[in-house]
Amino acid sequence: MYDIGRSKRAERAFSLDDIAIVPSRRTRGAEQVDLRWKIDAVQLDFPILAAPMDSIMSPATAIEVGRLGGLGVLNLEGLWTRYEDPEPVLAELADCDDADSTETLQRIYSAPIQPELIRARMDEIRDAGVPVAGSLSPQNTQEFAEHVVASQPDFFVIRGTAVSAEHVSDAAEPLNLKSFIHQIDVPVIVGGCSNYRTAMHLMRTGAAGVLVGFGGGATHANREVLGIEVPMATAISDVAEARRDYMDESGGRYVQVIADGSVGRSGDIAKAIACGADAVMVGAPLARATEAPGRGWHWGAEAWHESLPRGARVRLDQVGSLEEVLVGPSHTSDGSMNLVGALRRAMAITGYTDVKSFQRIEIVAH
Amino acid sequence: MYDIGRSKRAERAFSLDDIAIVPSRRTRGAEQVDLRWKIDAVQLDFPILAAPMDSIMSPATAIEVGRLGGLGVLNLEGLWTRYEDPEPVLAELADCDDADSTETLQRIYSAPIQPELIRARMDEIRDAGVPVAGSLSPQNTQEFAEHVVASQPDFFVIRGTAVSAEHVSDAAEPLNLKSFIHQIDVPVIVGGCSNYRTAMHLMRTGAAGVLVGFGGGATHANREVLGIEVPMATAISDVAEARRDYMDESGGRYVQVIADGSVGRSGDIAKAIACGADAVMVGAPLARATEAPGRGWHWGAEAWHESLPRGARVRLDQVGSLEEVLVGPSHTSDGSMNLVGALRRAMAITGYTDVKSFQRIEIVAH
Amino acid sequence: MYDIGRSKRAERAFSLDDIAIVPSRRTRGAEQVDLRWKIDAVQLDFPILAAPMDSIMSPATAIEVGRLGGLGVLNLEGLWTRYEDPEPVLAELADCDDADSTETLQRIYSAPIQPELIRARMDEIRDAGVPVAGSLSPQNTQEFAEHVVASQPDFFVIRGTAVSAEHVSDAAEPLNLKSFIHQIDVPVIVGGCSNYRTAMHLMRTGAAGVLVGFGGGATHANREVLGIEVPMATAISDVAEARRDYMDESGGRYVQVIADGSVGRSGDIAKAIACGADAVMVGAPLARATEAPGRGWHWGAEAWHESLPRGARVRLDQVGSLEEVLVGPSHTSDGSMNLVGALRRAMAITGYTDVKSFQRIEIVAH
Amino acid sequence: MYDIGRSKRAERAFSLDDIAIVPSRRTRGAEQVDLRWKIDAVQLDFPILAAPMDSIMSPATAIEVGRLGGLGVLNLEGLWTRYEDPEPVLAELADCDDADSTETLQRIYSAPIQPELIRARMDEIRDAGVPVAGSLSPQNTQEFAEHVVASQPDFFVIRGTAVSAEHVSDAAEPLNLKSFIHQIDVPVIVGGCSNYRTAMHLMRTGAAGVLVGFGGGATHANREVLGIEVPMATAISDVAEARRDYMDESGGRYVQVIADGSVGRSGDIAKAIACGADAVMVGAPLARATEAPGRGWHWGAEAWHESLPRGARVRLDQVGSLEEVLVGPSHTSDGSMNLVGALRRAMAITGYTDVKSFQRIEIVAH
Repeated sequence: MYDIGRSKRAERAFSLDDIAIVPSRRTRGAEQVDLRWKIDAVQLDFPILAAPMDSIMSPATAIEVGRLGGLGVLNLEGLWTRYEDPEPVLAELADCDDADSTETLQRIYSAPIQPELIRARMDEIRDAGVPVAGSLSPQNTQEFAEHVVASQPDFFVIRGTAVSAEHVSDAAEPLNLKSFIHQIDVPVIVGGCSNYRTAMHLMRTGAAGVLVGFGGGATHANREVLGIEVPMATAISDVAEARRDYMDESGGRYVQVIADGSVGRSGDIAKAIACGADAVMVGAPLARATEAPGRGWHWGAEAWHESLPRGARVRLDQVGSLEEVLVGPSHTSDGSMNLVGALRRAMAITGYTDVKSFQRIEIVAH
Repeated sequence: MYDIGRSKRAERAFSLDDIAIVPSRRTRGAEQVDLRWKIDAVQLDFPILAAPMDSIMSPATAIEVGRLGGLGVLNLEGLWTRYEDPEPVLAELADCDDADSTETLQRIYSAPIQPELIRARMDEIRDAGVPVAGSLSPQNTQEFAEHVVASQPDFFVIRGTAVSAEHVSDAAEPLNLKSFIHQIDVPVIVGGCSNYRTAMHLMRTGAAGVLVGFGGGATHANREVLGIEVPMATAISDVAEARRDYMDESGGRYVQVIADGSVGRSGDIAKAIACGADAVMVGAPLARATEAPGRGWHWGAEAWHESLPRGARVRLDQVGSLEEVLVGPSHTSDGSMNLVGALRRAMAITGYTDVKSFQRIEIVAH
Repeated sequence: MYDIGRSKRAERAFSLDDIAIVPSRRTRGAEQVDLRWKIDAVQLDFPILAAPMDSIMSPATAIEVGRLGGLGVLNLEGLWTRYEDPEPVLAELADCDDADSTETLQRIYSAPIQPELIRARMDEIRDAGVPVAGSLSPQNTQEFAEHVVASQPDFFVIRGTAVSAEHVSDAAEPLNLKSFIHQIDVPVIVGGCSNYRTAMHLMRTGAAGVLVGFGGGATHANREVLGIEVPMATAISDVAEARRDYMDESGGRYVQVIADGSVGRSGDIAKAIACGADAVMVGAPLARATEAPGRGWHWGAEAWHESLPRGARVRLDQVGSLEEVLVGPSHTSDGSMNLVGALRRAMAITGYTDVKSFQRIEIVAH
Repeated sequence: MYDIGRSKRAERAFSLDDIAIVPSRRTRGAEQVDLRWKIDAVQLDFPILAAPMDSIMSPATAIEVGRLGGLGVLNLEGLWTRYEDPEPVLAELADCDDADSTETLQRIYSAPIQPELIRARMDEIRDAGVPVAGSLSPQNTQEFAEHVVASQPDFFVIRGTAVSAEHVSDAAEPLNLKSFIHQIDVPVIVGGCSNYRTAMHLMRTGAAGVLVGFGGGATHANREVLGIEVPMATAISDVAEARRDYMDESGGRYVQVIADGSVGRSGDIAKAIACGADAVMVGAPLARATEAPGRGWHWGAEAWHESLPRGARVRLDQVGSLEEVLVGPSHTSDGSMNLVGALRRAMAITGYTDVKSFQRIEIVAH
């Protein structure tokens, strides 16, 4: 606890860059590491979700992520539900100058959401035989939720900059997360949250998982625009404590803690788990894949806000296929490829066999 | 408290960049946020003052700031009172090379202040039907105060690098702030101050508000030239404590605490309030407006000192109209536009409805 | 100890850059400093080993390091045992573009190790009359150890990113370091380790010395790729404590602590010893020598991993001969030349005569 | 106190950049500030000495510094005593490429010192009617001291990287500072020292002043080359405590504490005094004067060491005359001009009238 001055105190907060993992006295062969992760009825080969961002997730890339063993989440209020064929606008976005990019985003995303496309996109993914997940923001959840539920996804993700269980609004009926989640028959993942109390309240809504963080580490600017930020290592550690306390309070419900944002390099995945996360949702690393719809550009939902954009279109060099980025082999040394192999190696080198126990690994702060 | 060495200790101080705001367990619709701010008899739509700097405030832009709901303060010892028509020297300043800019400033500002222009400029603003405020430095207050008072502004701002209630000088009559403020019939805003004790003494002078900081965050160089600096988050927090203590001591006088300087991005406004400020005085953000007299350049009073300049003319890219900069809509994601909307959003996302209670929001330090 | 958040704590760790050496009340003439260092039966003129990296150590440069008074360690699973004549591939590596360098490394190092070359290279060094040392990674130790032992080196170095005394693997027979070291008749230096417990276990294997750190400070990327790092000053200090505790436990065995990695400038050598190291293993500084096989490029074993490279080929300007780099005279002021002279001078200026007592010098952290 | 690791602790140390001065509740007119400083029998107009570096001090510039009210110290083992006319070698140094500068320095400074020039240079300065001071390194003090003493300077400065009262050497007669100082009839200023104990021992030699720091902040590289550094704010504060304790021990001898090095901007002078210094010795700021012999280049004695250079020739832009740099007026805003005016202003703004009491000003650390 710091004294900022005579009338204000602040907890010290740590980002993933501030910390590092310390080896233990044991090492293991990589073949001993089990990365499987189970959330609700679905088991994945590794604890990595692809973020619902139009620059990385199309129905095709969501299918490919699922085929490789992870979970791709499609943005259900993005280009794939606003346009029958989003390829021309994706191309336009890739070609526009930096100076025009925010206004271009604002214009392109002003097209209305076509509810019938929600079902169509989800069906396309399900037909490929992989887990299906789609996301809406809290603001749009009530209007479009029926279409999402009707498409019977494995997961319904409700994702915003900062989501609370108690939204107060002058709107006729603000979304009551708790009753909403209890009504629908689809497991919900909800966030982002960034502190203990908000996380506790979100866990009490009945969500299967909570997202930690504000998402879009590489592309949002909440700190500059709003002054809001909770560095990720601290946010995860606080929410992991809420998971434990809620488990006690609920008599045993284990809510998955998913770090969402600030994961730019493969080493960040290991660090996020070391802080207490069960899984991570990644964005920017996948924007480096050659198949990414963004064509080497990356942006989040904050970037197209009509009156207060809080993110930019950013350039990320393409390094290889989605498969190489996720499961290797890697041909770079900067943590941009073989995310899964890097996590496996980090756990092997430090002597751990499963993700849950790796949450206890010793760390240092710099 | 740090031990610098065996014979010296120092409090740790924090800048606004060192801190960030943490969401609470509640979120709100932006329409629930009330940004109105009342100081003395004047109520503004939002707690933002435009700093008395010639690069941003002319009578015309002061009127525009007032029309939009804020308070523009005109520098009464700057170009608008030294020149009948300052446009030619503003153009000269905009065109001169960086290497010549300090000497050009020193020359242009060596023209004498024409007292009759003080009244004329204030009248021009009042005629537009917006609140009127003008500033002098403590050094010039005695000589020109009568002209300011005669123009009956809503606020008289006395602003310098570091202002104290107890100035000791060999001059015949050093300005006694307390008796001066009691004599005149105009509410006074005075500063900058940067610590608890100075703030207490300034509050005891009867001022309606105190400025915290040294002003001109982007353009001054007090740290390099003088070695003097109090990082802003700490300064605000200390002065906010003085406000509370003075309120008790005075039996209920509430002195407005106005952060002045180091506010470069919209997020800094929310952070300043989170540290305890009631309002902020901004400079550089307004220099980015297309109507700004500086034509994309920004400078403060420290920049034209005849023997010890402590600031430079700096370049700031123009991003949009004064209206877009203050109340949006924004087309950038760097916190340079829609300052008011960003503050409203920061408060809504963290669940607060009014500025006063937002001073209690939780923060973290990095 | 930091609270990262409610559920995780972390020790604060320091890099060599974070610390500096403080003079004492006494100064000495440089001629009073005795830098000799004895490990097992070998006495060196100064406590510096050259790292087993192909960019710096060939049989010729290992001989030159020995002639100058240090110990050159040859990589026995690198280019000199994979190629009869590695000069063409070294030239190819030096000529390839940065973008192709990782894939070129992966291809060049896919050539098989030729066991008969191990003996030949070691013989070549021994014939020059200098101490002989070669290294293998833990993974290759069992397969090729007999060839190393047969060549009767003065030291057998087992070096990997993170080496433990307890490797768990599905392989038929994971290497049991303790029984291996007891079997062979050559003193073993083993590492890297980075914390107290791992070091204690490594010391119990009977090793003559332990390497501290992950090696290859300039060329590896364990932090980005794996999230693993222990800043060097802290790692050395922790392992030095293990040395003391093991000495007590073992009834007097003194295991040499050798800092390996993060030594980029001559000042880092003095700092590593000030933290408790008995000697340092250097890489990058020697890559600056004109005789270095890397021809101005530097890379480590992590750089050629087939599926998860964790280091890059980096460019280092050549500054002078290997002799000038090690023992001077220097013609630069950046700590890149006369490593031995700089250590001698640092000890003289602070009043110390021998390396062992210099471990007690006072330091400050910034 | 930090735990670096299990076996090593370190005090936290602060540089001048880490701290800043806090205003008090009082302000003053600049005319109330008295900057006069008395050391031994000499009174200066302000507490600033010019460092004995060939890039800034020639007999002519030493005279000019004296004329302006300060004290110029001539390097008596530099170019002015090695060359009858050093202008050609100064020109050669100014013209040589960066890549050749260290070797050029090593060659030019290999010319022998001509003892008769010591007397001649000192006489030239005395004839101008200003205080006379010359410096030798401890290594050369015994050989050339008689020539310095014979020239009857006001001060004899013995200055090296780290100077102790107890130098141990195999040389026949290492310099015994205490008996040397008692023998000669000239007040001695000696340093650099950087901690409490060394300073206590130096004060006991009978010196009139001690230099704090290693000198040559802009031009030396002790940290990179030797690993040695004590950040300046901490060093001054520790030595100031030694001054107080020695004053008690000696029954009232006040030894002047002079900060030497790390003073690059005028604000650093105020900060050094705020940490406890009585005066500062400046180098780089004077190298910016048009009259500086270095012609815009700056270097220290460490730069020409024959086998281990620990400094480089660095480029500094010329900003104005020596008079403008020292006493103004200034035409820059970066703390490079009007050093004396800036100190006066810093004291006035914070309400102090004399240097001694300004040592008690409140500071913050960042």
